[in-house]
Amino acid sequence: MDIRHDPMLAAAGDLDTPCVTILLDRLEDNIARVQHMIAAAGRANRPHIKTHKIPAIGALQIAAGAIGLTCQKLGEAETFIDAGVTDDMLITFNIVGDAKTGRLMDLAERVKRLAVVADNDIVLRGLSDAARRRGRSLPILIECDAGFGRNGVQWPSTALDLARLADRLPGVVCEGLLVFPNNAPRTLEFFAEAVSLFRAAGMPLPVLSGGGTPSLNSLADYPMMTEHRAGTYVYNDVMMVHSGIATWENCAMHVRTTVVSRPTEDRAIVDAGSKVLTREQYYVQNFGHVVEYPEAAVINLSEEHGIIDLSASAEKPRVGEIVNIIPNHCCVVSNMVDEVYGLRDGRVEIVWPVAARGKVR
Amino acid sequence: MDIRHDPMLAAAGDLDTPCVTILLDRLEDNIARVQHMIAAAGRANRPHIKTHKIPAIGALQIAAGAIGLTCQKLGEAETFIDAGVTDDMLITFNIVGDAKTGRLMDLAERVKRLAVVADNDIVLRGLSDAARRRGRSLPILIECDAGFGRNGVQWPSTALDLARLADRLPGVVCEGLLVFPNNAPRTLEFFAEAVSLFRAAGMPLPVLSGGGTPSLNSLADYPMMTEHRAGTYVYNDVMMVHSGIATWENCAMHVRTTVVSRPTEDRAIVDAGSKVLTREQYYVQNFGHVVEYPEAAVINLSEEHGIIDLSASAEKPRVGEIVNIIPNHCCVVSNMVDEVYGLRDGRVEIVWPVAARGKVR
Repeated sequence: MDIRHDPMLAAAGDLDTPCVTILLDRLEDNIARVQHMIAAAGRANRPHIKTHKIPAIGALQIAAGAIGLTCQKLGEAETFIDAGVTDDMLITFNIVGDAKTGRLMDLAERVKRLAVVADNDIVLRGLSDAARRRGRSLPILIECDAGFGRNGVQWPSTALDLARLADRLPGVVCEGLLVFPNNAPRTLEFFAEAVSLFRAAGMPLPVLSGGGTPSLNSLADYPMMTEHRAGTYVYNDVMMVHSGIATWENCAMHVRTTVVSRPTEDRAIVDAGSKVLTREQYYVQNFGHVVEYPEAAVINLSEEHGIIDLSASAEKPRVGEIVNIIPNHCCVVSNMVDEVYGLRDGRVEIVWPVAARGKVR
Repeated sequence: MDIRHDPMLAAAGDLDTPCVTILLDRLEDNIARVQHMIAAAGRANRPHIKTHKIPAIGALQIAAGAIGLTCQKLGEAETFIDAGVTDDMLITFNIVGDAKTGRLMDLAERVKRLAVVADNDIVLRGLSDAARRRGRSLPILIECDAGFGRNGVQWPSTALDLARLADRLPGVVCEGLLVFPNNAPRTLEFFAEAVSLFRAAGMPLPVLSGGGTPSLNSLADYPMMTEHRAGTYVYNDVMMVHSGIATWENCAMHVRTTVVSRPTEDRAIVDAGSKVLTREQYYVQNFGHVVEYPEAAVINLSEEHGIIDLSASAEKPRVGEIVNIIPNHCCVVSNMVDEVYGLRDGRVEIVWPVAARGKVR
């Protein structure tokens, strides 16, 4: 591991709050453990950078054996390719409009392989036009909706139609299919039918790309998949613990915060609110897990205030005390701060700028 | 109004998505209208900058008649004081720890008046120590919890105890009481009792500071208040429309986004997800109001995807079409982007960096 060690940096206890800390031993363990899980399932590992948005952590994933990286937005891919982390990049978002397809082709010229998804003919034709104008060939994965209810073609036959259109258009080559998450309800049925349809049509499907951290435990249930894209596993969070894919001890991201008020016996106010933790909940209750007071509940967040209910906690923190909160969803917390602090043995070992924070385009 | 006009800037239609646009006519109208409302109620106007985080907009509020500004975090106050927007600043957050009280005193030395809240003796003693070390006197407002359930002393008698402690401590002068929001359940009863208690004790209360945009309609119900802190009114959002304090036509912030997929007849996917709109809901349903398709519902957000249900909308957007979304909560959207685009008459009149974005400390 090439995490840089700078002995001049502060003791962890000196960090002012709120701030986001990364426990480096856990980060390294998560990267190694999941690389092993994915390799053991016979898949290529293509981690999603959305969780950390930090080129140096992408480099750790590549060093551990990942074949390349996944980005959601062009601006993220530009950041990671500028940093020279990988020359095999996948962008899992429909790229629409001349401004963006132009940037996409600029990037394609700088790496060995830049692949991108499409789930409709308008997007596919736009990619074809842009690639043709540059005299290049762009690898395409067709995004499939196997029950998650977001992007994606709804039927294997539509995927085949789109692949045939790609065959006819200049500048685009259909390399396979992509789904998120791997364990969406219809994945097995959808991919089994697609593989059979494409085979009958004599169309190769070298890449079948699944994704998601919670589906790491069921990789063997989807034997046709060739690669896996997981993001959250590098840090983990309350959602991953509730999903059974991580324990509290696998959670590498802590939001360090100070108790600034104890207005009542059972209420503490901390200086991290939704501007750090976000109000993301999905299927979990409350807004984070308090490491030092596991019976306490982060029951509400204002932008700058975290409201903690201490009624179930025999021990109660005092004003001025530092507490660490594991967020519900670590990926979105990365996007709220300009830097994170990498900790080991009570020291700040490294300060990482979140280089791809806020890359919304 | 001194919004700078640059004729070289783009047509609004050229802005790539997603991005946050501010309709300047509406912004100016909101600033003027609310200044008038607050002045007509006999209050001083001290807008909260958390909504825009942009010094130039703070300057417009001051030019319209605001006596000063409100910040939640030291980093915000530093940004606005660096920009020279006001020399009368209030920080409405308990400042804890030597690092922060030192920064607070640095700021106090640069402006005519910097006031700060306290709701407990530990915070008050910390402020006193820091001010004493600099040989300065710091104005304090005692934060009261009149039923909102966040920070604040719970009883008027506790406020008096804290004011008496401030009297005994060097470096701090209690100037009054503060509450958020103005229309919290017990505000009237709490402040009436406090005013009477302080009067009986011979302690002046020159400042009684209320807050909140939804409470602008009921200022007259709280006649003892001397100043009002509202933030959201500069832009407004779905929550303010639901609160009855604004109409859709008062909403100055639009999130400009592109339809990137139409996976089914009734589903559209746009390129703005929680990384721009955030998943904040509080008391409203869904995740934003689609201006061009008011019957459409933004039913879910991933980080980069907005999922729109078109089943109630007779008209349905095509892939590549631009739609504008009014967010649930404009303040948190400001914090998601590095810049906003000020629009008038179909032109980008100004690009404002969100200078105090991400100032979590």
